[in-house]
Amino acid sequence: MNSKETKVAPAREIAARIGRLQNAMAGKDVDGVLIQQKSDLFYFAATGQQSYLYVPVEGQPLFMVVKDFERAKMESPIENIVSLTSVKNIPQCLADFGLTPPERLGLELDVLPVNLYLQQQKIFSRSESVDISLEIRLIRGVKSPFEIEKIRLSCQLSDKLAQRMSELLEPGKKEVELAGELEAYARKLGHQGIVRMRMWGGELFYGHLLSGPGAAVSSYLASPTGGKGVSPFVAQGAGHNIIGMNEPVLFDYVFAVDGYLSDHARIFSIGKVSDKILDAHKAMLEIQGEIIEKAKPGAVTGELYETMVSMARKLGYGEHFMGVGERRIRFTGHGVGLELDEFPFIAKGQQLPLEKGMIIALEPKTIFPGVGVAGIENTHLVTENGLEPLTLFSDEISEVRCA
Amino acid sequence: MNSKETKVAPAREIAARIGRLQNAMAGKDVDGVLIQQKSDLFYFAATGQQSYLYVPVEGQPLFMVVKDFERAKMESPIENIVSLTSVKNIPQCLADFGLTPPERLGLELDVLPVNLYLQQQKIFSRSESVDISLEIRLIRGVKSPFEIEKIRLSCQLSDKLAQRMSELLEPGKKEVELAGELEAYARKLGHQGIVRMRMWGGELFYGHLLSGPGAAVSSYLASPTGGKGVSPFVAQGAGHNIIGMNEPVLFDYVFAVDGYLSDHARIFSIGKVSDKILDAHKAMLEIQGEIIEKAKPGAVTGELYETMVSMARKLGYGEHFMGVGERRIRFTGHGVGLELDEFPFIAKGQQLPLEKGMIIALEPKTIFPGVGVAGIENTHLVTENGLEPLTLFSDEISEVRCA
Repeated sequence: MNSKETKVAPAREIAARIGRLQNAMAGKDVDGVLIQQKSDLFYFAATGQQSYLYVPVEGQPLFMVVKDFERAKMESPIENIVSLTSVKNIPQCLADFGLTPPERLGLELDVLPVNLYLQQQKIFSRSESVDISLEIRLIRGVKSPFEIEKIRLSCQLSDKLAQRMSELLEPGKKEVELAGELEAYARKLGHQGIVRMRMWGGELFYGHLLSGPGAAVSSYLASPTGGKGVSPFVAQGAGHNIIGMNEPVLFDYVFAVDGYLSDHARIFSIGKVSDKILDAHKAMLEIQGEIIEKAKPGAVTGELYETMVSMARKLGYGEHFMGVGERRIRFTGHGVGLELDEFPFIAKGQQLPLEKGMIIALEPKTIFPGVGVAGIENTHLVTENGLEPLTLFSDEISEVRCA
Repeated sequence: MNSKETKVAPAREIAARIGRLQNAMAGKDVDGVLIQQKSDLFYFAATGQQSYLYVPVEGQPLFMVVKDFERAKMESPIENIVSLTSVKNIPQCLADFGLTPPERLGLELDVLPVNLYLQQQKIFSRSESVDISLEIRLIRGVKSPFEIEKIRLSCQLSDKLAQRMSELLEPGKKEVELAGELEAYARKLGHQGIVRMRMWGGELFYGHLLSGPGAAVSSYLASPTGGKGVSPFVAQGAGHNIIGMNEPVLFDYVFAVDGYLSDHARIFSIGKVSDKILDAHKAMLEIQGEIIEKAKPGAVTGELYETMVSMARKLGYGEHFMGVGERRIRFTGHGVGLELDEFPFIAKGQQLPLEKGMIIALEPKTIFPGVGVAGIENTHLVTENGLEPLTLFSDEISEVRCA
């Protein structure tokens, strides 16, 4: 059972990630980091089990597992692994492995709740706490070849889901009904269901399936499209709208397999959509094409955002690009990986330059209240030559004929 | 559009909740509370939009909405409602409404991330921060008649889902395949998809559909059953196991409609299960029956837990009740409402007495590694006479005949 095949990631992959973290720690004068957020744990320890990973600035990490220890041991290639009954025992665990308490302790302060932090301040009473989340997010923003293959797979399955959409789309169906059918298919393909976001309160259920004017309803989510949802509690995504003829139907789905996400939007229709939607869609594809060329390593994310906004304006979509009025969002793309809101952000004011190996969901969209949505979203890999799209289903509006 | 019918909860319902919070604040010498967690916001302001709710210890609350303002205005019965562009503007907003900065400011410190807290410490530099989460959770733990009706509806839909399970269960199907089919049906019934937990890192995707020995696989979740899941990233719930004949198939699903949850587990089988499973199931029903009688207002939750554990021991299931060895969990029931992990907890050491109007998912289960799971979970209302089950699908093991 404990053979190499049961490991979720190769030992050298995990060692390289830990090495990058240790470099970042050294640069910030941090002696030890305690990782406890679920996606960070999966990234650095290759298991989803409940645990704490202590990384010293030099030497081997110590992996302390609360539940389930046997599963974590089977999945994680980290060598120093122990069972832990309480967070209070962490200092003793460290001492048992010859690790001295850190002077400066790095914590994920962007996500750690205050009460847990206060408890840990007592446990590490001699350590000064430092936020290490920016460094972790920067590391996670650049994907390894191992991760890129995982994301490729997610994108391939997302293409299959888009294909299935052409087969299931019928007039008279409720959005939630079609969404449920699509999601059943996604599950059969191995979709993990849960899509994680790092931002507090961020949440998404598979994605957005929205028809006609319903796609232009704004919501709480930091996203160009919102949707009414099935209730004001989860006020986004598919709702009880009936899908009609000749309207743009937005398929905006996140595939999630082996932890890794793709993000993918297409417009479908039953019968023809209006020229207004067709023209806007064409404009969004033009903007996408421009960025595919320009988004090479070194390109500054905030400048790419401004390029997109200014192209949209020149093409006549300034008032409708990425939302309308106060409801406009200030980004046009975001990194994806284990979470939906990873670095880099193609967003207003962002200074981060692109690097080879980043993965970006680029989503130029136009929103017409009362009418619907046009535009595109593809998951791309940043290469020396610009963006390589990993979602390959046709970018054009897919017109489905009514049977 | 802004008529009373568009409000998510009646104004008097929201006023009563705010009143209970103000009472608790007075008892704790807190002058103001800033509510910002999504489920708490929905509870006290009746919208899921991105916002902050300030509640002074006396007088009217002020509702500040970031996105989407128009939706929040339509949904929330709170009268003082304003659009907010940045959290930094909250003190000015308060001043505009004649509210003085609080000396002691209540915050949801069990869930609020450290970096947001540190930012807010600066914004409210003259206020002392106090944790108000316990008081909020105690208030939310006792449901109003309005909420009980919502939960009844969720339970009725969950019964329909269990009925559908009898129709869809077939040998040779993968767990995830059957799960997807059930979930598509749940969506059609209006299931909101997202199931929220308050605990940091807590997550659930619909529930657990687990067959035979697969149901006895432990995982990171604080739950008696775990399951392998589709990958180590989301290492719980339905996986790639093929459903066989004569094995217990666990259907443990959370329905979620209009924000409110039910939690419901049943055992199904294709053909007969072993006497071992039948006997264990009978024992779990006996334990449930005992608690239905005993769980009256005033009963202490920790004592109910001990009663269940000691009954399980007497009935011969001491080693298998709620897990095995280190993997045993220390609770047998939990409150449900807008979140899956609400007060009260029927758990080791809990001192909280039951109150009329609490809702409890009670789940006596036995875990046999290598074989499977037996037992039950129903969502109950605490009444003067003990528990009233709200999920009504037959408690017995449902044997489905192979076509």
